[in-house]
Amino acid sequence: MEKEDNFGDWYLDIVEKANLSDKRYPVKGMNVWTPYGWKAMSNIDGFIRKELDATGHDEVCFPLMIPETEFKKEKEHIKGFDSEVYWVTHAGLNELDVKLVLRPTSETAMYPMFALWVRSHHDLPLKVYQIVNTFRYETKQTRAFMRVREIHFFESHTCHVSEEDAQRQIAEDVDILSKIARSLCLPYFLSVRTDWDKFPGAYYTIGIDTVMPNGRTLQIGSIHQYRTNFSEPYEITYEDENGEHKHVHQTTYGMSERLLGAVIGMHSDDKGLIMPPDIAPFQTVVIPIVSKDNRQQVTEAARALAAELSVCGIRTKLDDRDARPGSKYYDWEIKGVPLRLEIGGRDIENGVVTFARRDTGEKGTISLKSVAPGAELLLSMISASLREKAEMSHMSKMEEIDSPDRISEGKILKFGWCGCEECGHKFEDTYGLKILGTPYLPERYEGRCMICGKDADRTVLAARTM
Amino acid sequence: MEKEDNFGDWYLDIVEKANLSDKRYPVKGMNVWTPYGWKAMSNIDGFIRKELDATGHDEVCFPLMIPETEFKKEKEHIKGFDSEVYWVTHAGLNELDVKLVLRPTSETAMYPMFALWVRSHHDLPLKVYQIVNTFRYETKQTRAFMRVREIHFFESHTCHVSEEDAQRQIAEDVDILSKIARSLCLPYFLSVRTDWDKFPGAYYTIGIDTVMPNGRTLQIGSIHQYRTNFSEPYEITYEDENGEHKHVHQTTYGMSERLLGAVIGMHSDDKGLIMPPDIAPFQTVVIPIVSKDNRQQVTEAARALAAELSVCGIRTKLDDRDARPGSKYYDWEIKGVPLRLEIGGRDIENGVVTFARRDTGEKGTISLKSVAPGAELLLSMISASLREKAEMSHMSKMEEIDSPDRISEGKILKFGWCGCEECGHKFEDTYGLKILGTPYLPERYEGRCMICGKDADRTVLAARTM
Repeated sequence: MEKEDNFGDWYLDIVEKANLSDKRYPVKGMNVWTPYGWKAMSNIDGFIRKELDATGHDEVCFPLMIPETEFKKEKEHIKGFDSEVYWVTHAGLNELDVKLVLRPTSETAMYPMFALWVRSHHDLPLKVYQIVNTFRYETKQTRAFMRVREIHFFESHTCHVSEEDAQRQIAEDVDILSKIARSLCLPYFLSVRTDWDKFPGAYYTIGIDTVMPNGRTLQIGSIHQYRTNFSEPYEITYEDENGEHKHVHQTTYGMSERLLGAVIGMHSDDKGLIMPPDIAPFQTVVIPIVSKDNRQQVTEAARALAAELSVCGIRTKLDDRDARPGSKYYDWEIKGVPLRLEIGGRDIENGVVTFARRDTGEKGTISLKSVAPGAELLLSMISASLREKAEMSHMSKMEEIDSPDRISEGKILKFGWCGCEECGHKFEDTYGLKILGTPYLPERYEGRCMICGKDADRTVLAARTM
Repeated sequence: MEKEDNFGDWYLDIVEKANLSDKRYPVKGMNVWTPYGWKAMSNIDGFIRKELDATGHDEVCFPLMIPETEFKKEKEHIKGFDSEVYWVTHAGLNELDVKLVLRPTSETAMYPMFALWVRSHHDLPLKVYQIVNTFRYETKQTRAFMRVREIHFFESHTCHVSEEDAQRQIAEDVDILSKIARSLCLPYFLSVRTDWDKFPGAYYTIGIDTVMPNGRTLQIGSIHQYRTNFSEPYEITYEDENGEHKHVHQTTYGMSERLLGAVIGMHSDDKGLIMPPDIAPFQTVVIPIVSKDNRQQVTEAARALAAELSVCGIRTKLDDRDARPGSKYYDWEIKGVPLRLEIGGRDIENGVVTFARRDTGEKGTISLKSVAPGAELLLSMISASLREKAEMSHMSKMEEIDSPDRISEGKILKFGWCGCEECGHKFEDTYGLKILGTPYLPERYEGRCMICGKDADRTVLAARTM
């Protein structure tokens, strides 16, 4: 299956061959996380946890089920989710008095508790997050990690004394995102979603999108400014320094297992996965190259090498199966292990180990004396190279246009927009592209709306989505 | 609230005061994990993960929802769970064709997949585990960590070529348990549950019980031998070396958040929690004792001390709030931080730091030059002392009796039993105690059944349960 010709089929083929997820579970769109896929996702979770902890977020875990009464308190929110939630109506042999919804996201689970937790300005900011699974009754075609019905994700929720403080939180979220994306070698761009496309209940929504090699965008997360849209119905108030009671200002930030889907789609090739070193379940695989007369010596050297790398904190797999080296290379290429180390009789004589990079295929040797720092250096070179390559691909897909005649396939288009919903819908309907929103970082623009021709003071981004 | 007088109320009071869990969530028995409680539970999960990984178990994550059709394949199993599962019947605005059950445990989610994963004896043993939340519609009075409706737990599932190999797995599980319990400073005992009390579908069940200070037992986990009871209905077969197709032999092992409940109940006192050092969210708290003229110097020394301890891998909290030391002591005693370190002007002059143990109240000084190894030594002494004290309490509650006249309150009783169900039920009904089962390690016994007086070749354990 070739990535360039048919990205969609190639993607599904790679996920299956590398055994990251098993879609044969008897409920459509609910896939089993196999050990290899779960390890990669747990490594991503680890980075998320590290960055959120470092910025003073506390990890919590809220119940999965939300009573219908709480779920329906914010009117826009329920309108947005009504058609895509799962309902628990019975327990044991009884019908429940109050139906329960499986969280599609946790605003309505958390905010009744926030109303109890927040009393005074001393309790603010409140910054919590959880890493859990969430449930959406997806009616479109499902696709591993990218569109599923049980979704692994993190959600952070914050409460602030003022809109300004909430805005500072959003700036912090953008900074956290840049660090996580760096580990994943994943370029992205931010746009403020249009009013008709924002999160149900939000004041505004920042969409976090990345572009797949087929030129389609994949939303990997979002950041929301709620103002007091939720704190009013949920009555989350605090007493300020003057004894006045005020509603808190809220934000949320969430990203899902789509991060893993994006990493696969971005970096892998026709031979299989290419795992960015920071999240690779195994960063190196050590393969002994034995002959009849040196089997024991070489196997022991390989074992010692793997042990040394592990002690130095490099996630290492020793593959000492009784199989031909070629078939081992093949297996680990599919799995996307970034660095392969081979050790044979001649390597031992020369005091070296032979390496092969998964990303470029480049081969060479490292001195056995400095094998751990050598492997670390190579891994950081691989990360840098994956990052650069992805960044180049990303940039090459950004195109600014001033006329619909110049719309080309597989590009993220930027053009002038008057800001009105009618033009937005007209554009989407005419060209089958989605309006992603206005660039997050304000850009000065003076020109005309590409759709209606009126004066425009902003640009908008549009693309085909995955 | 006093632990000795009223264990039940004391327990709930401590959980609330230490803010480990918030039971005000609007669904009864579904509590919110607050940051402090979740940190403690995550540390317990960390030990579980470490031991299971070290014994070759792979971590996976299976979907939450199980189709009714799969759920009902093993007849005993569904009979056991029919009255205590939650049913998802609707998604969006539609009624589902096949109802979905929220996992009460994951046999019926995993085994259809195992049937696909296991092909030949080369695929065995298959050893996987997951750490997830599970759901049971509990109708009894709920109690934080001990009896809840959304239960955080781990479950390991294994498949083997033979019953002997499955038995070896059970021995490994018992070994893993001993390591986890050591970290929690938690004594326990194992009994083979009676046939009328085993897990639905199991061939036999080993119950893992601990004894709370009020003399009631709390089941903290179980290990099950399934033989081929599940592999037959789920058709999990392998081809052996001779090309014959056989059913796999299966085991499971699981423990829940009751581990945390047991730790709280076992070690804490009237002042608050006492956290075993291995799982304490903060192992030490550093409190600067400032006076007017040395505020800056002492605060800086406290900060440096906390940083040094953290670098050495000791989970340390610096409490530099603007509050009286006494009120800080009080707060951290409630939270159960095992070791308090105070540093003031005189300590700095003497080159020491003053310590106070949470478990015994003992005070002393450690040289500032060797503060990290000193703190580590104290923490290991605290662990040893908690372990010993709990072990003593446990032993003091074990009593062997030969007549119902000698039944005393608050004891785990051991007595002769003929093995028949009728005697078992008669005993339970007459004395209001529960038969826990026969001791896991076979003991030679020749005597009489305490209930019917007939010859008995085994003993049985009985107690009041939490």
